[in-house]
Amino acid sequence: MDKKLVKSITPREEDFTQWYTDIVKKAELSSYSSVRGCMVVRPYATALWENIKANLDSRFKKLGHVNVMMPMFIPESLLQKEKDHVEGFAPEVAWVTHGGNEKLTERLCVRPTSETLFCDHYHDIIESHRDLPKLYNQWCSVVRWEKTTRPFLRTMEFFWQEGHTMHETKDEAIDETRQMLNVYADFVENDLSIPVIKGKKTDKEKFAGAEATYTIEALMHDGKALQSGTSHFFGDGFSRAFDITFTDRNNTLSYPFQTSWGMSSRIIGAIIMTHGDDDGLVLPVEVAPIQVVIVPIAFHKSNVLEKAKALEEKLSEKYRVKLDDSDNTPGWKFAEYEMKGVPLRIEIGPKDLEKNQAVLVKRYNREKTFVSLENLDIKVEEALNEIKKGMFEKALNRRNEMTYVAKNYDEFKQIAAEKPGLIKAMWCGDLACEEKIKEDTTCTSRCIPFEEEQITDTCVCCGKKAKYMLYFGKAY
Amino acid sequence: MDKKLVKSITPREEDFTQWYTDIVKKAELSSYSSVRGCMVVRPYATALWENIKANLDSRFKKLGHVNVMMPMFIPESLLQKEKDHVEGFAPEVAWVTHGGNEKLTERLCVRPTSETLFCDHYHDIIESHRDLPKLYNQWCSVVRWEKTTRPFLRTMEFFWQEGHTMHETKDEAIDETRQMLNVYADFVENDLSIPVIKGKKTDKEKFAGAEATYTIEALMHDGKALQSGTSHFFGDGFSRAFDITFTDRNNTLSYPFQTSWGMSSRIIGAIIMTHGDDDGLVLPVEVAPIQVVIVPIAFHKSNVLEKAKALEEKLSEKYRVKLDDSDNTPGWKFAEYEMKGVPLRIEIGPKDLEKNQAVLVKRYNREKTFVSLENLDIKVEEALNEIKKGMFEKALNRRNEMTYVAKNYDEFKQIAAEKPGLIKAMWCGDLACEEKIKEDTTCTSRCIPFEEEQITDTCVCCGKKAKYMLYFGKAY
Repeated sequence: MDKKLVKSITPREEDFTQWYTDIVKKAELSSYSSVRGCMVVRPYATALWENIKANLDSRFKKLGHVNVMMPMFIPESLLQKEKDHVEGFAPEVAWVTHGGNEKLTERLCVRPTSETLFCDHYHDIIESHRDLPKLYNQWCSVVRWEKTTRPFLRTMEFFWQEGHTMHETKDEAIDETRQMLNVYADFVENDLSIPVIKGKKTDKEKFAGAEATYTIEALMHDGKALQSGTSHFFGDGFSRAFDITFTDRNNTLSYPFQTSWGMSSRIIGAIIMTHGDDDGLVLPVEVAPIQVVIVPIAFHKSNVLEKAKALEEKLSEKYRVKLDDSDNTPGWKFAEYEMKGVPLRIEIGPKDLEKNQAVLVKRYNREKTFVSLENLDIKVEEALNEIKKGMFEKALNRRNEMTYVAKNYDEFKQIAAEKPGLIKAMWCGDLACEEKIKEDTTCTSRCIPFEEEQITDTCVCCGKKAKYMLYFGKAY
Repeated sequence: MDKKLVKSITPREEDFTQWYTDIVKKAELSSYSSVRGCMVVRPYATALWENIKANLDSRFKKLGHVNVMMPMFIPESLLQKEKDHVEGFAPEVAWVTHGGNEKLTERLCVRPTSETLFCDHYHDIIESHRDLPKLYNQWCSVVRWEKTTRPFLRTMEFFWQEGHTMHETKDEAIDETRQMLNVYADFVENDLSIPVIKGKKTDKEKFAGAEATYTIEALMHDGKALQSGTSHFFGDGFSRAFDITFTDRNNTLSYPFQTSWGMSSRIIGAIIMTHGDDDGLVLPVEVAPIQVVIVPIAFHKSNVLEKAKALEEKLSEKYRVKLDDSDNTPGWKFAEYEMKGVPLRIEIGPKDLEKNQAVLVKRYNREKTFVSLENLDIKVEEALNEIKKGMFEKALNRRNEMTYVAKNYDEFKQIAAEKPGLIKAMWCGDLACEEKIKEDTTCTSRCIPFEEEQITDTCVCCGKKAKYMLYFGKAY
């Protein structure tokens, strides 16, 4: 077996796009299907998604959310009920026009998102303030008719969760919107080791039909930004459009306030592009399908395999462990599990046994340590914690290095032209400036961060009085 | 609060169909949506489905199966590759003809089942016998364009898992087909307390494109049969149609042998119609969203609530427990959790505390026992085990009472006309007899059971030599 064979992926600095495609293929995450723009999510990536899902789902449930399963179709008339929403989505939906051999009297779209379906249901089940809040979520796939697609980052069908909640008061709904953004940020930073910027989208970039969209933005290794999770406050716009009313505490008929929030399989793209390197994937401990791989060396000798199996059994109590006792060479196995991004490798051979030790190798920085077999489980726990922190710091350092400040438009244009990364700049709040910046530089506004800085007093584009600080970037 | 208000459902013996509809509504399992034939699966039924899913998924994984996520669309040309399959499904699929504002050059159907998608993928990834077996499964929803629909039993969109496997040899594939049928039977009998008959479908009733279809058939309270899980052996038909080949152990190019197997959200209908009664749902312990409900009585007094909370905490270590300390009356709560089918209720009040006891009430047979608080957790465990067994025996007794033997066609017709239930009868194996029986009696063949009996020597319909014993029934 040839180690190079497995590892032959395009270097990341040479061609980032091809590097990404190579990893997706060689790590067996996804393959193309006969259905244009749709992907086959292979077992390894499905296991990764299941771990992401379990983690988020338990966070949602702890906060009182419950899951439901809504239809995948939306009748055209239902989609049209909220004006901004239909304008945003109608151009990019798949239309079902025939059932069996019959032409339908009304077209159905395959859901691109489910606000309209939830509102239709909420209309039926909300009557009194005692019915509120409704804290619903669903795990499903949605379809948006995209022209160009890339696995996980942009596909016609993608997998996600969509939370849809209804509240008695505006304040409560805004709190929910922010709370769920914090849930996403906490998950992505602590469990995926990806630093994010929390902020609010400009009106131009907000979700179709929302009053406000909050976002977490992450920086990929190539300097492009990736919107990684969003949370929307709708006010009572949909409630009015769908005639959802409730009897409030003063016995008055009122409209409830709504939120929605989503995170998708796109986050797998963020994991690949934040942590991956020239040897393949680097997976965060929390969601890795295999957290620890044990590679026995020369295991026909002495009792190496026996010891490796005992180790597997012990560690399996706490971790997802794989012992690879196949006939492949250790070198082949090292390359294979590096490609698959397994966070920690344990090597154990006859010489190690003589010294009563094993070798731990961290995937993300290749640090190699020799540890006693006596307290190996403690050493593994320590190593996994170090990996978690270390991966976050590495990504944060890179983001800091790639974040620039532009005080005037010449600076802005120069940075945008020469330096991949994020640009912090002041903005007057006018759509015209946002559009001009995009036209001149292809940079879009990522968000008004919750933690704004006062860089200058004037808009980086027009020079008028600045209202906000914005993060700009080229985006996926 | 009026107990009757909650409990006002149509009696089961008066109008079984309406009783079913009432339970689905009052237990808040599902509600109709604006999308014809599609249902909203509400939180309580979604939680039930999640428990069913977790149980089956862990059974599949223990046997080496892995999950994948395939596209929801099938291009028309892909669907057409296997002749029998397309004939079976094309008349009942939903067709996507437009993406955004563009007409598609090729129509896409929304998957009614995914054999063609899996085969398309297997074509790409199977090369050698070392790649086999492939043991894939997916959890998703599928769409079949049904004329008349009923929640869980028959809906245009339904939720299911579909296993799709590929094997080196015919024997191995047949073993897989049977193994998975046994997994279903074991789950349904042991964890859902629903007795099933395992058997093989006749050629008339088998899956479109399959060489053989195995089934588990359950008897509902009204005497109708419900196909509750199926497992199909495909031979190498799809492999040939999709040109899936592998280099076998003799270095020869061969076609692999295929299976598929599925269980759907229809099983929720089976739970309702097997165990439910005039007070509502009766849920099996294993999958009930709430396994034990604690109702404190007069809990403003002494330390009832304190004790109830301690109990909740203790029992929550092992079970899904709900303590209802709302303002509703005990009577209202009893009715509510009876409607929701919670397997075990614990009542605890001031008088109980004086005697250091609590009251356990089993939902399925209303048995009431007084148990000491000292070893309550052991008593709860015993009670739940008794419920599991008791529900199965009750359902089995009913099925035995409603299973009839027909030795000749007059008997058959008389039973079919007068007695709801299953009919055992001999069959010559000819399609003509099967069709005549259906025409004359509306009974369809359910299966050739694995455990055949020799009732007579001749076909119940034509009188020619009998080849098989069949179960007949009116089916959902």
